[in-house]
Amino acid sequence: MTQQGFHVAIVGATGAVGEQMLDTLERMEFPIASLKLLSSKRSAGKKITFKGDELTVQEATPDSFEGIQLALFSAGGSVSKALAPEAVKRGAIVVDNTSAFRMTEGVPLIVPEVNEKDLEKHQGIISNPNCSTIQMVAALEPIRKAYGLKRIVVSTYQAVSGAGVNAIDEMYDQSRQILDGEEIEPKILPVSGDKKHYQIAFNAVPQIDVFQENGYTFEEMKMINETKKIMSDDSLQVAATCVRLPVETGHSESVYIEVEKDGLDVTGVRQLLNDAPGVTLQDDPANQVYPLASESKGKDDIFVGRIRQDLDQEKGFHMWVVADNLLKGAALNSVQIGFSLIKLGLLK
Amino acid sequence: MTQQGFHVAIVGATGAVGEQMLDTLERMEFPIASLKLLSSKRSAGKKITFKGDELTVQEATPDSFEGIQLALFSAGGSVSKALAPEAVKRGAIVVDNTSAFRMTEGVPLIVPEVNEKDLEKHQGIISNPNCSTIQMVAALEPIRKAYGLKRIVVSTYQAVSGAGVNAIDEMYDQSRQILDGEEIEPKILPVSGDKKHYQIAFNAVPQIDVFQENGYTFEEMKMINETKKIMSDDSLQVAATCVRLPVETGHSESVYIEVEKDGLDVTGVRQLLNDAPGVTLQDDPANQVYPLASESKGKDDIFVGRIRQDLDQEKGFHMWVVADNLLKGAALNSVQIGFSLIKLGLLK
Repeated sequence: MTQQGFHVAIVGATGAVGEQMLDTLERMEFPIASLKLLSSKRSAGKKITFKGDELTVQEATPDSFEGIQLALFSAGGSVSKALAPEAVKRGAIVVDNTSAFRMTEGVPLIVPEVNEKDLEKHQGIISNPNCSTIQMVAALEPIRKAYGLKRIVVSTYQAVSGAGVNAIDEMYDQSRQILDGEEIEPKILPVSGDKKHYQIAFNAVPQIDVFQENGYTFEEMKMINETKKIMSDDSLQVAATCVRLPVETGHSESVYIEVEKDGLDVTGVRQLLNDAPGVTLQDDPANQVYPLASESKGKDDIFVGRIRQDLDQEKGFHMWVVADNLLKGAALNSVQIGFSLIKLGLLK
Repeated sequence: MTQQGFHVAIVGATGAVGEQMLDTLERMEFPIASLKLLSSKRSAGKKITFKGDELTVQEATPDSFEGIQLALFSAGGSVSKALAPEAVKRGAIVVDNTSAFRMTEGVPLIVPEVNEKDLEKHQGIISNPNCSTIQMVAALEPIRKAYGLKRIVVSTYQAVSGAGVNAIDEMYDQSRQILDGEEIEPKILPVSGDKKHYQIAFNAVPQIDVFQENGYTFEEMKMINETKKIMSDDSLQVAATCVRLPVETGHSESVYIEVEKDGLDVTGVRQLLNDAPGVTLQDDPANQVYPLASESKGKDDIFVGRIRQDLDQEKGFHMWVVADNLLKGAALNSVQIGFSLIKLGLLK
């Protein structure tokens, strides 16, 4: 560490997640000696204010990473594939928010509350998991630690900001058109690069990312595979159904779990979550207290409520898990990985 | 049966479901000799056109049911509790769309595709199940018949029209206010009679109906208990999480099941559903074909897609089930019960 902090670069500084990264670095007072904002050629030249200084966004090239110690990538998988190895070659540690390297052997997939120690095995690139995975595993980790985890069945209620700023605009524009009785013409959601596009306003679309051969979407397979990798448990059974909703920011998840050991009840789950780092318990059904996507925006924590024991499976529990998908689901988790690297003495 | 048909009454004729009942009776050519429209005192006097005739809505009283053979109730539980026995006393068969008698011993709870035969045991009152239950059991029945059913875990994505016309208005008004940057003041959803009200526009609210002592909502307990009763299987394991969305009409459900017998695969599930009465298969992931709430409005069928075998449980399957909650979830199912009563010679 230089006296003032580290030389940091953000790749994808002008995107929805990039914006939150800048905000998070600033408010969490990440020790920064210099900050370089990188983007595609198209967005280069834009001015962004950081801690009162006006910075100019530059086009990301291999040479951009000379002298950089920490590079936070959030500009799409193809950019990460092309430039992350270049950054590493020049001595940077990369925290990559795309899916490009998440399942690659030797690339730690990190949620600091769950597997911070796995950072020690890094070889230059560290992956930030998928948004919907992060909030779920961070909420489940205290339960897994104490009672073991056999199985997860999750159905998601995901916000459009996970698909970028254009998706947010499409949702709001479409909503207004429908309210005004106008024709709509879906162009972006559910997946901008896919063949067909469907109405997102006043709807629920059971497709996030493209379909795989096995009938699951890539988003569902991410939740399944990433959860096993983060929790270092190949025998953990994970099933996911991922659904996009007309919500701007804030992913909600209906999570069913089965634990390994006997003796857990709802009070026990609440205690474990109450003591968990990064988790806020919001669970008081008598007073209609439960997490809501609308309340999660801009907040760092993962909110958990609606905790119920299954009526048939003694070791089965249901819960409702909500978090800001751009913060804990992306930018915040990346910055937290940065802090973990410092704490473990890995960022030099 | 009189020469022209039956003497029919609709209680709650001016509500969201009542309106669909009238429309369904007309388009399905239910044999009607006379039709009496009943409501609360407040709505009495309204004029409604049925098959070209203008009918005047009358206040429902015990004497309203003199001479009535079939009474379709959809005016809230308290109205059914007060007046359904009066209608039966006067010789009518009651098909009740509220939860008032659903779990009462001796009251058949009917989805014609599943348990039409149970009508034979009726003692005057027949219950129409909860909207979210109907579409799920009708979709699962062909699978249950062929392979047995051990377990269901469902997470719902429910439309606001299930909470009545005021809830629809609240959702649209609130959406416009948020788009215009105005303050919102939730007054109806999630449950009009409950203490607190929350934003429904651009949100997902994990509460439908009031909470029970056990932490489950009444809506969730309805899905659990009604499914066992309709399928005549107390050992069937059912778990439900019910969530309200900013969707006008069309309930979606993420359904996970485990069957009893070996040998079922996705192709088998598709075949069973393709041959099932009242079900339309929409399952072609390669071409992004899956059911959507926005496409279900005004349609009679239950739409099923996203059928996947669980990656860990060989007898486990996931699917996405969508239906118009006012039609198959309410009015259509009630009218279909009427047709079943005629077919079985029970309506006289």
